[in-house]
This record gives sequence, C-alpha cells and structure tokens, in this order.
Amino acid sequence: MYIHNFSAGPSILPKTVFEEASKAVIDFTGNGLSILEISHRSKDFIKVMDEAEALVRELLSIKDDYAVLFLSGGASTQFFMAPMNLLKQTDKVAYTDTGTWASKAIKEAKLLAEVDVVTSSKDDNYMHLPKDIVVNNQHKYLHITSNNTIYGTQYATFPEVAIPLVCDMSSDIFSRPFDINKFDLVYAGAQKNMGPAGTTLVIVKKSILGQTERKIPAMLDYRNHIENGSMYNTPPVFPIYVSMLVLRWLKNLGGVGVMEKLNTTKAAVLYNEIERNPMFYCPVHQDDRSKMNVNFLLHNSDLEQKFLDHAKSYGCQGIAGHRSVGGFRASIYNAMPMEGVNVLVEAMKTFEKSFG
Amino acid sequence: MYIHNFSAGPSILPKTVFEEASKAVIDFTGNGLSILEISHRSKDFIKVMDEAEALVRELLSIKDDYAVLFLSGGASTQFFMAPMNLLKQTDKVAYTDTGTWASKAIKEAKLLAEVDVVTSSKDDNYMHLPKDIVVNNQHKYLHITSNNTIYGTQYATFPEVAIPLVCDMSSDIFSRPFDINKFDLVYAGAQKNMGPAGTTLVIVKKSILGQTERKIPAMLDYRNHIENGSMYNTPPVFPIYVSMLVLRWLKNLGGVGVMEKLNTTKAAVLYNEIERNPMFYCPVHQDDRSKMNVNFLLHNSDLEQKFLDHAKSYGCQGIAGHRSVGGFRASIYNAMPMEGVNVLVEAMKTFEKSFG
Repeated sequence: MYIHNFSAGPSILPKTVFEEASKAVIDFTGNGLSILEISHRSKDFIKVMDEAEALVRELLSIKDDYAVLFLSGGASTQFFMAPMNLLKQTDKVAYTDTGTWASKAIKEAKLLAEVDVVTSSKDDNYMHLPKDIVVNNQHKYLHITSNNTIYGTQYATFPEVAIPLVCDMSSDIFSRPFDINKFDLVYAGAQKNMGPAGTTLVIVKKSILGQTERKIPAMLDYRNHIENGSMYNTPPVFPIYVSMLVLRWLKNLGGVGVMEKLNTTKAAVLYNEIERNPMFYCPVHQDDRSKMNVNFLLHNSDLEQKFLDHAKSYGCQGIAGHRSVGGFRASIYNAMPMEGVNVLVEAMKTFEKSFG
Repeated sequence: MYIHNFSAGPSILPKTVFEEASKAVIDFTGNGLSILEISHRSKDFIKVMDEAEALVRELLSIKDDYAVLFLSGGASTQFFMAPMNLLKQTDKVAYTDTGTWASKAIKEAKLLAEVDVVTSSKDDNYMHLPKDIVVNNQHKYLHITSNNTIYGTQYATFPEVAIPLVCDMSSDIFSRPFDINKFDLVYAGAQKNMGPAGTTLVIVKKSILGQTERKIPAMLDYRNHIENGSMYNTPPVFPIYVSMLVLRWLKNLGGVGVMEKLNTTKAAVLYNEIERNPMFYCPVHQDDRSKMNVNFLLHNSDLEQKFLDHAKSYGCQGIAGHRSVGGFRASIYNAMPMEGVNVLVEAMKTFEKSFG
C-alpha cells in the first residue's frame, strides 16, 4: 500500500529528491565517490553550497544586504544565537508567546537580554494568534513564530509594527512569498519544507551584526559563518545537498508563488471537509488556521483510535495530534501532493458513513 | 578507474555502508518511507539511536557512569561546550597546543575559564608532540588532541597526569581501544572514522556536570541532551543513521582491537615506503607519527605536482598536503583497505623509477 506521510517533521519530501539523493550516496562525482565521503572543500561540494544559497536567494528574492547561511543545531540553537548576535545584555526586545516553540525562544532570549512578552494566547491553549501586539521603539525587534507546528496556527499576514521582525519560520518557509525587508533575521530548521533534519537556514541582515559588545564563541558568531560561506567548520554536507535538491524541485515547479496557490488549495480542501463532516471540528480560530499543519478533533473523542486505524487502512500515516492538543494533525507541507489530501478526505468521508 | 579516497575528512567510509544507506534513502521502513522523511520520534528511528549508542558503549567499553550523546555542530562546538559545562569562569584548566585545532580549542576555552597552555610544539611547526606536560591539582582537566589531522601527529600513549583528561578525538576515535576512565570527556566529529559530516559524538562523565553555576542555553547544556536521549530537539537523523551503520560494520569486523592491528599494519607499510624511497621523507618525529594521517614530502618539492598527477593516474585522490605543511597527506582511516595503501605505495615506487 502507498503510504501518505503526514508527519509534522522530519516530514515528506519529493520522491524525485529521494531518488537522486539515493544515487548520490553511491556515486555523486561520476567517478564512484559517495556524497558522504567527499571533502567539503572539494569543487563538487562547493558547487552544491553555492547552488543552495543561490536558490534560497532566487526563491525568496533576497539581495546581498542579507547573508544566507546553512548552519547546524536546529531552530533551538537559533533561539539563543539570534539574541546573542543581535542584542546587548541590557537591550529590550519584544517576544510573542504563541506556542511551545515560541515559549522556548522566550526562555532562551531571557538569558541574553531584557525580554518583554508583549502578547500571549496561552490561556486559549494557543488556539489563536493574538492581534494585540504593542511594541515601542526601545524594542530592538519583535520575535514571532510564523507557523506554530503543534497548534496549527499561522499568520495569514505578518504583524505590522514599526520595528524589525525576527522570525522562526521553521515550519512554513518556502510555502509562500514574503518581504524579507521587514525582517532583521529569519531562521528555519530544514526538516519541514526544505530538507531532511541536520541543517538550519539563517537569513540575516548583515548591517545589524557586530554591535553587541559580547564575547561570542566562534561557532556562535554569524560573522564567522558569513566570512567562510557557511564553511567555518565542516558543514552538514548531506543535509545541505538534499536541501539543495528540494529547492531545485521547488524552482522547477514554479517557485513559492505557485507553491502558495497549491498549498492554499490543499488546505481549503481539508478544512472544508472538517467543516462539512459532522463528526469532526477544527479547534483553531478561523483566521489563524495553518496551511501547513491542519489540526482537527472528533466530537466523540472515544472514536480517536478507530479513526487512526481507519486512516491507516488508507495509507495515511503520522496524523496523531500532538499531546498538547489531542485529536489529529495532518501536516501538508510543500511536498504533500493534492492526491494525499484527497485520500485523507476520502478516509474522513467513509469514516462518517461507518460511524457517523 | 577505481578511486582510492585519501581525503582528510569527510572521508572514506565502507562501501557496504553506502549501499545500505542508499537503499534507506528510498525505503527505510519496508513500506516505502525514506529515512529522510520519518519522524525522529518514530519507533524506527528510536531503534537506530538506541543501537548507535549501544554500539559506542560496546566498542569502547563504556559503562553507565558516562553518557553517550550524538549532537550537532562539530568538534568546533565542543571547543566551547566542554568548558562551558565543566568549568566555572574562575576555574583553572590546562591545554596542550599541538596544532590548528588544539589552538582553536584554547581560544574558545579562554572565553570561559582561566587557561594555562602547559605545552606547545608550535615552534617546531607542530612536527612533534611535546612530552613536558606539567599540570597541578588546581587544573580541573588537561585538554589534549589525540590525533592532529593537519600535522600527522598522534599520541601513541596518552599523557600520564594526575588530573582527568578532556580529549578531542575527532580523527582517531574507534581506531584503537582506550580507557575511558582517564577521561572526563571525549568528543569527536563523525566525519573521519564514524560517519558522514553532521553529527558529533560526546562521551561525558555524568558526575562532573551541574557544578558550573553558569546559565547555559538549553541546547548547550549536556544535561538536557542526556535527559532526552540526544533528542532534546530534532537530531541529525541521517548522519546518526549512517554512523550506526559504520559502527555495526566495525563490530562485525571484530571491533577496535582488530581495527588497531589493521591500522598499525597499514601505517607501517606506508611509513616504510616513505623511509625506503629516496625521493620522499616524513617531517614528523618518529615516535609521534599518526596512523590516521600520514604526512610526507618530496626532497625535490618542484616535483610535487608531478607526483600528485602520477598518484591520480593510479586512482589515488585527496593526497595533497594541508597548506600549513605542504607536500602530501594520505589519510588512512578505518575504512581505507590495505589494498588502497598498496596502490599508493606502488605509485611511489613507480614514481621513483621515472623521476628518481
């Protein structure tokens, strides 16, 4: 049976990427060397790194005033690297509390600056994105999480504030166009829309660096990574290579504008079924529903295991909801085809017939 | 032509590992899911992580008083994570300066404690390992680099001191047995003897943690990684999986004791030819020559490019020396078969016939 992978991350990637990556593990250079054994200083890998950076710039319209870096350590490392590189210890900064990862970002930033949590939807179990964001010109930036993977919320439009944004875009980068000029820094773990686990994309405005007066360990200083083209030390070669293949696939498909339309359609089909089907409901506020992670619940929660089994019989895997929300979560990232969503909808319809 | 990969790292890994990894990129779970798309919380990956840890413990005889972690960020991240987790800011600590990477470790540690550089071979361009190591009981540990990849030196036996060792073992871990009880901490980037670039092995004595009085960012605190079995955040799934395959290969081959004998033989064959062949010499002090990275020079350095071309005609790749030493460097890690060394020796012999 064909498996439809709805995992929240690491998650589905294009099949053609797996095929090419699989071959490269055996012979990448054409003379029998694996992508896993070549030097990161070899011309073969430098080409990969250059193409990966160029694709990020092209797909997201990023000019030379921003650096594009492929680092390691995940978004969790950016939670402290961002404030460490952007703030003095006495600086004030504004954070939004919109979920588990946003809370972790706040906790890390508090070690490194004076953090104002300017808004929170915790009382609502993060089921909406609060719009009452008030910042002042003492705040060096406003930190937001563009898409909250666990809670299934996503900013339809980014907050309009008079200070720069810093954004954890881990779970929806490359899903739609955005204007980088509103951001001092954007970071994203690869393992949703960009590639496999093991590398982290950082896009940072170069002119804001070097003002912190801190002593920063070399590996944590963006400037070292910029100077060395993401090769200050040995980079995670294979995760970067696969990310490059995914970005190439996205470009060939038409880029993030085309992808946004596909994502909008996929999400609409799934949310429409949740609304139509009398057995299910979506707990997330209508305006803030994510096009990447679709959360839904059964009115009769006693049937949860039955629906998981039923969906599994259709090949739908990875749809158990996070324990903080319960129910179900279908992650429908860029690489999830319309066909996969249709199969899940079909499973919901037949479940209604059997148990409704 | 068959390529013999003598790269210093990322470097040669067993061909059987490439074959298995290549298949796993297409179908790891047996139902069509790639190792690149499965959740790190899935039972399939938890089995990988558990087996990887168990293999490290078995191969290196490590008991439960030490934690075994698979992190990211390379040895360069351990340069500051180790002192950050082991030392107070006012602590004294001893470091040995035996090469480029040792110097970088010193530089990072200086941000975090009072560092005494107790010995250095810099004046000798690091061509020997100084034996005049004097530490005192105020030093919390002695930091050493077991094998200096660039300079081709390696401790035949570790320094005997009355304080614990902390060791960067990136380029010779798993090449020979060692007694972990002498060490508070051992760390190693995977990309030589353990796997592809993208993960870092840390073996740390649990009882020494939690005494620094520092506020450590969550991702930099070993205790968080220990509590979460190396899954505090999404780990580098594929690099850990391939490392597990390499460790399995090593176990099937007989373990590090058997590997040490093979490595000793391979190194002897190559050093013997360097000594015998009147065109070449080894610049490294006899007692400190590395069994992993064999540095050698031509008496007539004008012929360097000719020898590189000649070796290449035999399929020998990656033998250009690091710019700090010049000449040639043949990295003969665990996965380099005797056959590869024999081909390089043959190339040296025929070069002598043509140009000697």
